[in-house]
Amino acid sequence: MTSYPPAVSLREVGPRDGLQNEATVPVGARVRLIDALSATGLRRIEAVSFVSPAAIPSMAGAAEVMERIERRPGVVYSALVPNARGAHDAVAARVDELEVVVSASETHNQKNVRRTVAESLTGVYEIVELASAAAVPVEGIVSTSFGCPYEGEVAPQRVAQLAGHLLDSGCAALSFGDTTGMATPARVDGLCDALEAARIDVLAIGLHFHDTRGTALANVLAGLARGVTRYDASIGGLGGCPYAPGASGNAVTEDLVHMLHDMNIDTGVDLDALIGCAALAQALVGRELPSAMLHAGPRTRLVRAS
Amino acid sequence: MTSYPPAVSLREVGPRDGLQNEATVPVGARVRLIDALSATGLRRIEAVSFVSPAAIPSMAGAAEVMERIERRPGVVYSALVPNARGAHDAVAARVDELEVVVSASETHNQKNVRRTVAESLTGVYEIVELASAAAVPVEGIVSTSFGCPYEGEVAPQRVAQLAGHLLDSGCAALSFGDTTGMATPARVDGLCDALEAARIDVLAIGLHFHDTRGTALANVLAGLARGVTRYDASIGGLGGCPYAPGASGNAVTEDLVHMLHDMNIDTGVDLDALIGCAALAQALVGRELPSAMLHAGPRTRLVRAS
Repeated sequence: MTSYPPAVSLREVGPRDGLQNEATVPVGARVRLIDALSATGLRRIEAVSFVSPAAIPSMAGAAEVMERIERRPGVVYSALVPNARGAHDAVAARVDELEVVVSASETHNQKNVRRTVAESLTGVYEIVELASAAAVPVEGIVSTSFGCPYEGEVAPQRVAQLAGHLLDSGCAALSFGDTTGMATPARVDGLCDALEAARIDVLAIGLHFHDTRGTALANVLAGLARGVTRYDASIGGLGGCPYAPGASGNAVTEDLVHMLHDMNIDTGVDLDALIGCAALAQALVGRELPSAMLHAGPRTRLVRAS
Repeated sequence: MTSYPPAVSLREVGPRDGLQNEATVPVGARVRLIDALSATGLRRIEAVSFVSPAAIPSMAGAAEVMERIERRPGVVYSALVPNARGAHDAVAARVDELEVVVSASETHNQKNVRRTVAESLTGVYEIVELASAAAVPVEGIVSTSFGCPYEGEVAPQRVAQLAGHLLDSGCAALSFGDTTGMATPARVDGLCDALEAARIDVLAIGLHFHDTRGTALANVLAGLARGVTRYDASIGGLGGCPYAPGASGNAVTEDLVHMLHDMNIDTGVDLDALIGCAALAQALVGRELPSAMLHAGPRTRLVRAS
């Protein structure tokens, strides 16, 4: 019988990765969502990104969001930063952790940030230097780790190599993103194998799945079987897939927590409070979110027989 | 690393379990769907049920469906039968295999068929006798195997005990249904453990999951890790959950096949043809189905970079 870790650490990415792909939500509502999320027991929240408001209007006002949220003790609020300028602003806004993203696919990197992978890596080095001076850790995220919507297959060895570069650049942690939902359990195993071959500690990595093709929770299960304990998810499943209109986006936080708790895997999160946050997220974006918990409720919700 | 079986056998249940919970689809359209499905390489199709048309109007015309479909060689067309009368009619319609359902939950069984579990087991015996005389095998299906919407938890030992009774009654095979989507991977393991303790061959069972709470593919993965090779799924995800309006129904056949193929697990099915069937199913019921393949397409569908 497969054994799984007794506890996992979830990073809630709805306020950033989720809302980035939704119609713009005002700063006040984003603050309300983040504060509701931090009250559920979640200990890591990707709150904002410090990007150009011209490029990504939905993420404008990051400093104001950081200023207005309740900084709950024990909660790590992180921000995605694309460059040194963003890192500077994030540090100034007292963000607890920075995230940098480099794509394992050259084409995707160029389409996403108009830079080569090599240029992005140079940027990472600058960001880490700046963050180190302020004692803020930087996580390196490899996007398109399980496939690229432009190039197709991405070799896990390529992903492992890039991960090594990110560690060499001073990243304190690594995550691997299934940017457009191309992962399956076999590919999770394949990546873990390649990381081990590159002497990267699989037990310390984070995994970020999208449910675009229905496999997010199966992929988490494959990660759990390999001992991975850090997972990203998005409240309500906020955030669609820009390449497939109408398709599901990120793994749904409350659905993941529901599954994990029933497997006796601790998350530290209050599921009922989390479902309340999903309802809030749904109200904020004004569209039906793909959350199974919102539609069906937890398995413990019984029907009256009479 | 977890090892999985190299091939699995899928039973398509959309024409019966799926359509039973949709607005009534005319016989001709059901025939068209079944014929399209049998052309994809699927080798087992739950085509109809021989139930009272007064009780379940959407399943009326079972004999006519069986009469009009193209009986593709090598394909096993099965029918659900609730009693000896249904079994008689199914045998007369030259159904290849019968299915009988008994719930592991007393309350669910009474609500579902207005009989005690003991009465249902007596009925199974009658059905098996009738079918045996015509050399038609009967599969015993234990519903609410992973939880009951009325009673809540269902002990896996209770499920194993009932499965033993079904084998004793002459059932040639066993399947276990997650009737309302209450299964998680831990519960799949728990059932397999209980079956092994009861000396029931886990490698020969079939599993039937619903995606009501998003766990269907993760549950299949847990089953694969235990060596289970028979799974039910419904084209397009036809069929909702009568207890949770708007919630997902059965595991989606094309999403399952997509995941399995990417894991190098053979199904014998043509995925593109299957996605065509999902589009047909969606057109027949006239509502958007929860198929990830219909929304996003397979992972091999690339976006033009230019």
